Amino acid sequence: MTWVANAWYVAGWDHEVDQAPLARTICGVPMMFYRNLDRSVVAMRDACPHRLLPLSLGIREGDSIRCRYHGLKLGADGFAEEMPLKGDPVNRRICVETFAVAEKHRFVWVWVGERAIADPALIPDLWPCSATGWAFEGGYNHVRADYRLMIDNLMDLTHETHVHAGSIGQAELMEVPIDTRVEGDRVLVSRWMPNVDAPPFWRGALKKPGAVDRWQICEFILPSSVIIDVGVAPVGAGATIEEHDQGVRGFVIDSMTPESETSMHYFWGMARNFDLADTGFGKRFKRAQGGVFAEDIVILEAQQRSIEANPDLKLQSYNIDQGGVRARQIIARAIRASAGVRDAAA
Amino acid sequence: MTWVANAWYVAGWDHEVDQAPLARTICGVPMMFYRNLDRSVVAMRDACPHRLLPLSLGIREGDSIRCRYHGLKLGADGFAEEMPLKGDPVNRRICVETFAVAEKHRFVWVWVGERAIADPALIPDLWPCSATGWAFEGGYNHVRADYRLMIDNLMDLTHETHVHAGSIGQAELMEVPIDTRVEGDRVLVSRWMPNVDAPPFWRGALKKPGAVDRWQICEFILPSSVIIDVGVAPVGAGATIEEHDQGVRGFVIDSMTPESETSMHYFWGMARNFDLADTGFGKRFKRAQGGVFAEDIVILEAQQRSIEANPDLKLQSYNIDQGGVRARQIIARAIRASAGVRDAAA
Amino acid sequence: MTWVANAWYVAGWDHEVDQAPLARTICGVPMMFYRNLDRSVVAMRDACPHRLLPLSLGIREGDSIRCRYHGLKLGADGFAEEMPLKGDPVNRRICVETFAVAEKHRFVWVWVGERAIADPALIPDLWPCSATGWAFEGGYNHVRADYRLMIDNLMDLTHETHVHAGSIGQAELMEVPIDTRVEGDRVLVSRWMPNVDAPPFWRGALKKPGAVDRWQICEFILPSSVIIDVGVAPVGAGATIEEHDQGVRGFVIDSMTPESETSMHYFWGMARNFDLADTGFGKRFKRAQGGVFAEDIVILEAQQRSIEANPDLKLQSYNIDQGGVRARQIIARAIRASAGVRDAAA
Repeated sequence: MTWVANAWYVAGWDHEVDQAPLARTICGVPMMFYRNLDRSVVAMRDACPHRLLPLSLGIREGDSIRCRYHGLKLGADGFAEEMPLKGDPVNRRICVETFAVAEKHRFVWVWVGERAIADPALIPDLWPCSATGWAFEGGYNHVRADYRLMIDNLMDLTHETHVHAGSIGQAELMEVPIDTRVEGDRVLVSRWMPNVDAPPFWRGALKKPGAVDRWQICEFILPSSVIIDVGVAPVGAGATIEEHDQGVRGFVIDSMTPESETSMHYFWGMARNFDLADTGFGKRFKRAQGGVFAEDIVILEAQQRSIEANPDLKLQSYNIDQGGVRARQIIARAIRASAGVRDAAA
Repeated sequence: MTWVANAWYVAGWDHEVDQAPLARTICGVPMMFYRNLDRSVVAMRDACPHRLLPLSLGIREGDSIRCRYHGLKLGADGFAEEMPLKGDPVNRRICVETFAVAEKHRFVWVWVGERAIADPALIPDLWPCSATGWAFEGGYNHVRADYRLMIDNLMDLTHETHVHAGSIGQAELMEVPIDTRVEGDRVLVSRWMPNVDAPPFWRGALKKPGAVDRWQICEFILPSSVIIDVGVAPVGAGATIEEHDQGVRGFVIDSMTPESETSMHYFWGMARNFDLADTGFGKRFKRAQGGVFAEDIVILEAQQRSIEANPDLKLQSYNIDQGGVRARQIIARAIRASAGVRDAAA
Repeated sequence: MTWVANAWYVAGWDHEVDQAPLARTICGVPMMFYRNLDRSVVAMRDACPHRLLPLSLGIREGDSIRCRYHGLKLGADGFAEEMPLKGDPVNRRICVETFAVAEKHRFVWVWVGERAIADPALIPDLWPCSATGWAFEGGYNHVRADYRLMIDNLMDLTHETHVHAGSIGQAELMEVPIDTRVEGDRVLVSRWMPNVDAPPFWRGALKKPGAVDRWQICEFILPSSVIIDVGVAPVGAGATIEEHDQGVRGFVIDSMTPESETSMHYFWGMARNFDLADTGFGKRFKRAQGGVFAEDIVILEAQQRSIEANPDLKLQSYNIDQGGVRARQIIARAIRASAGVRDAAA
């Protein structure tokens, strides 16, 4: 297994899950998601316990789902409520596996692992998605690559110069020292650029002339999210690497959910504390950001195919990869720890 | 192996096989079929004994087939008649595997197993396809699903309500008790609905007002056919579950030939004893029936994919599945028996 | 392995390789090819030594290539010249595998095996492609078949009658005895047709009436090329099977490079000593020849699929296959010999 068990993963944006079932394979398990009439979310194995037809093909009735094949009706708790033949007594031992779910920070999260120990307190704190005083735009892509390749990508911003040469890449980014730190299960990669010329995007956001202090701080959060704190502040306004609300600021949010060992669900977005009322800006920005991520996706899918075509070669790590290296070490440690939990339980 | 060896399987409708070779993989073996000038049918392995080019790409000469690659000419008995180079003496030990074939009930049948024990008396008795006094329409579909999923489907008519909600499904069908019986290698699932309102299809066939007695009797026949006896008779006309020729009657014919463990050739049709001269009815009905079966195919292919995506889950059987359960038991017993035949021969 | 190691294979036509990288998998190894500013050719493993992104997606800088992902810059010798981060000291142990290449007879050749023993003297002598006094036209096709099936095909011209019935096939070709000889690592299959009617193609080339002597001599050259010497000369002009420059003559050139065990790169062409100045003839002929080879490709791909679908059947060899049989024996011997080289080295 290349992913951490006993962890929360993003199943979808909250607006993706509604009355009609949404089918999505999470960490190798076919699941389906829908909302009850009270808007609470249900997650089930996407296979009828009777003859395994995907329940996502079924028909919703109240908070229940009725299989499209023989009509077995299952409640939101996964237990049988009505047998295929109406007269038949309901066998309440018949049930489909359900999964613990939670809604937080605009996402629907699903617990992968032992349901008994699912703890909402462990949901990754992607607070910028839903903080007041911040505007947010986000999107989704299916990517045919190991989710860890995206973590490598996001924890190293030097690739911007090459992959995003046509969009956000800038040679200056390469000339600033990078600081990599591990704090418990978090990895932080920081770049502080004092007294630089603001690039067009940030100049437009700041709406002021003059040199700026600029920062990029990438944070890895178990099991598979990255938040990138970015922005600029006028020189002399007092911004530091620790504290920098003096100018304009954004948080790029990325959460990668393994689908299989070679594919992922990629949820991305950006929170900003500027141009809050300008919905046109949000739409334009989302389109631009989608374009930037599309550049990454082309690269990552080519990398995945190359890994498979060159089984004798291994990924190598250089200085710039320290962020990804540390994040993968923390993932590997968490995989071993959760295997230990299983062994202790057995 | 998921299918019975030493048995006859449908290779095609009789009108599908003609002068030009028809390629079809039967029970995992690539075969090709054509007709001699006297209309008798030839079945061969679809690979030239020389360099394995499919013989179905070859050119017919009289009753023989000439390989498209080097021109090896094989007779209808499979033995070489002419070498690639004209002067070369014919090596009569060169031959392609041939298969026992038979034509019966509008079908071309092929024997899968030891040719020496092929016995035409064992051809499944799908008599309604070719009985005088009955009209018949049928069709063919390739289905990406284990052939036993179609047997399950046909031996349980409760799925009509859900899968065929838009076509032939009716809630009343669910409220009548079902009788399941095993007679030797046959399984019979019967439903007798006395004194009911005729549904539109049967009302139109009967061309009389008033309540009817209605029946549905599904019969499984080794190795993989199902006949469904359906119809209605006016109340009081004397129809019983055993004898019911007082009204209008049809036989739905289904024969499933395994292509691989996860795909099948599906031959379906219906014989009727009403509207015999109305060819327009036949055409309309065939189109409607094709539509109904298309609904089943969508379900079965989704079920097959789900079985593969959920390897930790197993098909479960409830009351309604007794017909399919019994049919699968008879198939499993026949597979064991034919393995015994092989062991005894060895 | 189905191919000979420690041998030169065609990587591409010389005009296919230029400044922009060309990606091509050779004998199972993803490679990429480009030209330096001085037009010399570079061959590298198509995977950046850093994170394995295909280098063929990279950007050329002088004679070097810069990876599209993080910007690692590699010289034409495969060694790192610049790290992803500009300030980082260059680690000169970082390198990508490079391959020995050579240009000869209009082809770019790559050495597959131990680079230390790559010897340009071993390049197959496909001299007709580049001889003065000869015009040449050629093409390329990707073929989903074991490269040895094409060698079988080319070393036996009896298939012309059947596969190329619509183009160059002629029944007369079948009536002449064939001579098969082995000379060291070469196999020669010859057919001498004295005093025959010239077929339309050769009549047009000769531009003279009257009977001709005609020849076809197929030569297999390790590891995987075939040259076919074809032509006609007026009867009485003195042409013999050994010496025949009295009329019009062509050399059909075929070189097959394994991509995988079931696919190949197919390079084909024809040199001629007539109509040299007629470029229109060359173009028409190339199109016609491409059409003839397309007929072979359809057959070979069907043959490959049939081999996989009939794992219990084996290719059989008759008299006409002696050329291919001998060529395969020489290939098998060379595979064993090169395994011996490896064992001795170890």
